Amino acid sequence: MNAVGEISPRPGLSAEARKALDSRLGERVSYTEAVRSQHGHSETHFASCLPDAVVFAETTEEVVFVVRLCAAHDIKLTAYGAGTSIEGSALPIAGGISLDMSRMNRILTVNADDFDVTVEPGVTRIALNNHLRDQGLFFPVDPGADATIGGMASTRASGTNAVRYGTMREAVLGLRVVTADGREIRTARRARKSAAGYDLTRLFVGAEGTLGIITEVTLRLHPIPEVITSAVCNFETLEGAATTVIQAIQLGVPLARAEILDDMQMRAVNLWGKLDYPEQTTLFFEFHGSQASVDEQVATVGELAAANGGGEFAWSSLAEERSSLWKARHEAYYATVGLRPGAVGWATDVCVPIGRLAECISETKRDLAAVSVPATICGHVGDGNFHVIFSLDPEAPSEWEEVESFNARLVSRALSMEGTCTGEHGIGLGKQDALVDELGEAVNVMRLIKHALDPRGMFNPGKIFAAN
Amino acid sequence: MNAVGEISPRPGLSAEARKALDSRLGERVSYTEAVRSQHGHSETHFASCLPDAVVFAETTEEVVFVVRLCAAHDIKLTAYGAGTSIEGSALPIAGGISLDMSRMNRILTVNADDFDVTVEPGVTRIALNNHLRDQGLFFPVDPGADATIGGMASTRASGTNAVRYGTMREAVLGLRVVTADGREIRTARRARKSAAGYDLTRLFVGAEGTLGIITEVTLRLHPIPEVITSAVCNFETLEGAATTVIQAIQLGVPLARAEILDDMQMRAVNLWGKLDYPEQTTLFFEFHGSQASVDEQVATVGELAAANGGGEFAWSSLAEERSSLWKARHEAYYATVGLRPGAVGWATDVCVPIGRLAECISETKRDLAAVSVPATICGHVGDGNFHVIFSLDPEAPSEWEEVESFNARLVSRALSMEGTCTGEHGIGLGKQDALVDELGEAVNVMRLIKHALDPRGMFNPGKIFAAN
Repeated sequence: MNAVGEISPRPGLSAEARKALDSRLGERVSYTEAVRSQHGHSETHFASCLPDAVVFAETTEEVVFVVRLCAAHDIKLTAYGAGTSIEGSALPIAGGISLDMSRMNRILTVNADDFDVTVEPGVTRIALNNHLRDQGLFFPVDPGADATIGGMASTRASGTNAVRYGTMREAVLGLRVVTADGREIRTARRARKSAAGYDLTRLFVGAEGTLGIITEVTLRLHPIPEVITSAVCNFETLEGAATTVIQAIQLGVPLARAEILDDMQMRAVNLWGKLDYPEQTTLFFEFHGSQASVDEQVATVGELAAANGGGEFAWSSLAEERSSLWKARHEAYYATVGLRPGAVGWATDVCVPIGRLAECISETKRDLAAVSVPATICGHVGDGNFHVIFSLDPEAPSEWEEVESFNARLVSRALSMEGTCTGEHGIGLGKQDALVDELGEAVNVMRLIKHALDPRGMFNPGKIFAAN
Repeated sequence: MNAVGEISPRPGLSAEARKALDSRLGERVSYTEAVRSQHGHSETHFASCLPDAVVFAETTEEVVFVVRLCAAHDIKLTAYGAGTSIEGSALPIAGGISLDMSRMNRILTVNADDFDVTVEPGVTRIALNNHLRDQGLFFPVDPGADATIGGMASTRASGTNAVRYGTMREAVLGLRVVTADGREIRTARRARKSAAGYDLTRLFVGAEGTLGIITEVTLRLHPIPEVITSAVCNFETLEGAATTVIQAIQLGVPLARAEILDDMQMRAVNLWGKLDYPEQTTLFFEFHGSQASVDEQVATVGELAAANGGGEFAWSSLAEERSSLWKARHEAYYATVGLRPGAVGWATDVCVPIGRLAECISETKRDLAAVSVPATICGHVGDGNFHVIFSLDPEAPSEWEEVESFNARLVSRALSMEGTCTGEHGIGLGKQDALVDELGEAVNVMRLIKHALDPRGMFNPGKIFAAN
């Protein structure tokens, strides 16, 4: 198993630091093994670790207090949201405090006329959308998991809607952040665009909590479309599926979602959800717009699919059918892990220029044929982003080695196509070498920024860069 | 006139530095008054200044050479593109070298299947679009002026298409940049999205050349829409015009452009272009899509306009008519300056949440009623961004004082509505105090980044922050 994150003996927090924490936060500081263990654990394949304490923050002022305390006592500080990070971004591998943000879950202001909302970072995307629905608005970024908005901002999350609505990079209008010196800043006001100085918003989005603690997020919203229609279509070939999506984009079809699932993924989805989709490469689509616009989109994409070896183009605008369809897509990870009892999941992702996606997936499938561990592929065709998910035997070190070297080949294949080592999962613990392979000298510029903003390496140590 | 930028005696470049420059770059180094003066001059209201030398770079390697030379000899370095900056961002106010990038104007690679292009920074947006047209692609960001792509990236430019296609923040996929230590980095590869480390692309976009010299830009492209239709509609009230656009956005109409021009701006446009538009608040629209989609958009917006006090909704899909319409909009600045012979232009911009735009423009018009200098208003309704343009008598200091205090009131009005002091012009020389008013402590974080990446303050000194 991955050596990073193994637990080494640590002295824990000093009595003085504990006393200060306890007197300010009382029962919202926990030193119990159960709570610490929960915050040192990740859904994915990284080894568990233990923070010295877990603090449940409820206000920005408390975050300021904790940051100042950590600065004064040289304690490491790692923020924790819903624990859904895939690359171990929230694991407190150097101990210290795990700052649980999930109780900062208030929706502060919905500005319906401005199409924006300001939330605390512990709000989850589903809770937010439930809150917004009555006002005819929605927040589109959808990574599958019910992650917190703070976590999604920190990993620059995206997901199935990004082809139309963008990622967290586009969705975040501004942040309130507590910096390493315990000051709180606002990175932007609520205007949709600004040319006022450096783009600090985009700097903290995707920084994986290594530059500061996000305590408020202002998000751009969209009107709920008049009509939403989903469709499923299986294809003879991967190329046919990818070409269908690229041609649709060329024709200006405003696809809301365009997801690809390979034959193995469809098999896993069928087994997991007791479904009976054909076990072939399949596209899942969603179309948003007026009735006339959606009708036209469906017709255009239907024709393209037929011309590219697509089968029956089954579509539905019923909310229940749509939701069961997307449930199948969203459960792709669990469906794959569930292929073997007692297995552990390992998900990786890369992103390439969209014209190279079919080639990249095809080569990856050929590569997978020689790997003994069961694996599936699914992805966001319109962005050139796809995932490979493995179902690993936790007791078989050879499987872990196989997947590790496969992952290295996958990254190097994506880089050779001018792509990136991660489209949406982040660097975390797992892709630090890949980041250097991808961006070289630019990583030193990132380090300069890290040192300037967090000179003592307090925030989320060991992430993005091996040594902060 | 603005005191910043006044020329103080300087020793100029050392003989050693001149010798090194001359021997590497020969006639592409100029010390003549005419060339230096051209590079120390701005279209707008800032005082002229003089660089000690102008260097015309042709390759990234030459930029590396110049940056290293400047670092070794403690020479200030300011990049220059098309000289269209509105806030004086390209003025070499501390002397040193003006690095003219306009000869780095090659279009390096068009990746039609990936919808992206890589260009040198001296390519202008019109040249780029002329080159792309045959491939059915276009680059949407359109600030009016035929700016260079490097300059547009550096000021985070946007313009009339941003409501649909975003600004340079969204358009730039990656940059090649020469940093202060003379190293070249690439901030990203060509994937549409990435979660690989800090978002250096977005950090350099909008940094106004204070963090490095951009030598290549990879841009996201869009397919040329099947149908493009423009429309003009005048309104009884500002509120009616703004409400029309907001309701259209609420209904999910994918407006490609939605521009507002006030009565004074329409008068200036009529005089300048010998046109006869009604001299009332007017919206200029553009719709992109399939014929069916555009027909539906036009119908919806036409109904909304009628319900909000709009007059006749005159539309055109003929390329010539459209181009004369948008010429009128794009010449708004010259039309206003031209209201008085011999006048100097002063353009400012702010951006507010879109629901506050009508209120902000209305208050601004009331404020303008008490200003003696002729002024017009135009803006990008769908973004909440508008401009006030003045036609100033260069010999009347009282007019400059009037405009300066008006500008301060405008900024403070926008900030009171949770907007920004500049939506697209940048900070440059003119809005440094406004930036501090807007973002407070966050400006100190920007300074930390500046010091980390350019510790000696070599790049574009005196911009964004008063003292680098």
